[in-house]
Amino acid sequence: MAERSAATLDGTLGFELIEAGEELARGRFAVTDRVRQPMGIVHGGAYAAMAETLASAATYMHVAGDGNIAVGQSNHTSFLRPITGGTVHAEGRRRHRGRTSWVWEVDFTDDDGRLCAVTRVTMAVRPAPGSNSGS
Amino acid sequence: MAERSAATLDGTLGFELIEAGEELARGRFAVTDRVRQPMGIVHGGAYAAMAETLASAATYMHVAGDGNIAVGQSNHTSFLRPITGGTVHAEGRRRHRGRTSWVWEVDFTDDDGRLCAVTRVTMAVRPAPGSNSGS
Amino acid sequence: MAERSAATLDGTLGFELIEAGEELARGRFAVTDRVRQPMGIVHGGAYAAMAETLASAATYMHVAGDGNIAVGQSNHTSFLRPITGGTVHAEGRRRHRGRTSWVWEVDFTDDDGRLCAVTRVTMAVRPAPGSNSGS
Amino acid sequence: MAERSAATLDGTLGFELIEAGEELARGRFAVTDRVRQPMGIVHGGAYAAMAETLASAATYMHVAGDGNIAVGQSNHTSFLRPITGGTVHAEGRRRHRGRTSWVWEVDFTDDDGRLCAVTRVTMAVRPAPGSNSGS
Repeated sequence: MAERSAATLDGTLGFELIEAGEELARGRFAVTDRVRQPMGIVHGGAYAAMAETLASAATYMHVAGDGNIAVGQSNHTSFLRPITGGTVHAEGRRRHRGRTSWVWEVDFTDDDGRLCAVTRVTMAVRPAPGSNSGS
Repeated sequence: MAERSAATLDGTLGFELIEAGEELARGRFAVTDRVRQPMGIVHGGAYAAMAETLASAATYMHVAGDGNIAVGQSNHTSFLRPITGGTVHAEGRRRHRGRTSWVWEVDFTDDDGRLCAVTRVTMAVRPAPGSNSGS
Repeated sequence: MAERSAATLDGTLGFELIEAGEELARGRFAVTDRVRQPMGIVHGGAYAAMAETLASAATYMHVAGDGNIAVGQSNHTSFLRPITGGTVHAEGRRRHRGRTSWVWEVDFTDDDGRLCAVTRVTMAVRPAPGSNSGS
Repeated sequence: MAERSAATLDGTLGFELIEAGEELARGRFAVTDRVRQPMGIVHGGAYAAMAETLASAATYMHVAGDGNIAVGQSNHTSFLRPITGGTVHAEGRRRHRGRTSWVWEVDFTDDDGRLCAVTRVTMAVRPAPGSNSGS
């Protein structure tokens, strides 16, 4: 998969979506100034945003066929180790697939494979507006 | 206060910091494509990032005088209501000021004053590298 | 309101529900050994449990009339200051009332009114089993 | 390891600690009324409390030798599937060991091995009162 649409947040921050499977999602972004905060490290919001993108894309792809959409409900990121350069690697595992919500846990590592942040994302699954599938 | 440095994430997403007081912090950003996700609503990561910016800036300003820095430790955002246009308004209240951590809760509202997201941010307070203030 | 049923967790830990309004919920519990951890302070799980009880009871009371139930979905507690004795006071404010989820924020204070813990609880609202109200 | 002290919360709720290793911690509790909420399912606070117990015990055992204690800082539990009977099994993996904080993720399963809740616990590591090890 290529870089996400340049106009939206994903493209603006240089997010790349590598895989959006039903149980595994992967992405990455290069550490340039646009994802840094003033002290030179990766901004905490960049991790949270990437996790949200991965979970949203992977959930949506697998519920859309049933006339549903996926909407972010909660995003909880813990920052374990700062990253200052190179590439940030994100890997999300689906932990729960319910009728109305999916839960993902995303690990972030640096180029040396060290765990730098973790995010739990809860996606709400809802009938698409205008769909006949839901109440 | 003016728009944050254009080069970093804050400037890239158009974040504006209005107030960074010891107990209250306020900011805002305009809803343009650079903060949207593909479905046209504000990307969840934009709320998380703005909360992180507010809490970091406000904490740092008030611990720096003691030779300390503030580092994001945890960011938990709940998304309550999507925003598609206008301005996103953020207001953070400090809930806790400990020796080693500060806790902020940030409310996000749309132009009609409706609550659209809430974030709890925990900032770790640490001695600045090279400072004599800490262990 | 009186002490909760002695047999369930609420009664076992001595939780008292004082108010379960549509926007405000209040409760308390005495600090005895049954809510302490081995070091003599209130166990973190006691705060989390009390917040869950308040949010569940208050949400349920106001959605049951429509044939719905309330089920805990997420509970995030931050511990700010240990409590060793006296009474733990809990006050929950409803921050969001959606069609499928309610969000509460609960503050815990000690007998001197100091903020000691905060919890955000997300309740899922679902049709009661056997109800005609939902899908 | 045997059942935890009968007087404290752990014993009151019937928590059993099976293993408190440096990277893995395991425990369990039987589903009786004392861990149930009024609707007959396991109370959300019981999962949160067990996760807090596991992370606290395992962290403390491995930092005490350096004159430190472990204090719960944050506990975020997501409830995925209700449990009504049998035994609740908890397994915690340490995700981060920093100088001032450890992070654990705890999975809860029922007797059929189904994932029913997940908790992320952040433990603060601090010098023991009266210790010479810290500032």
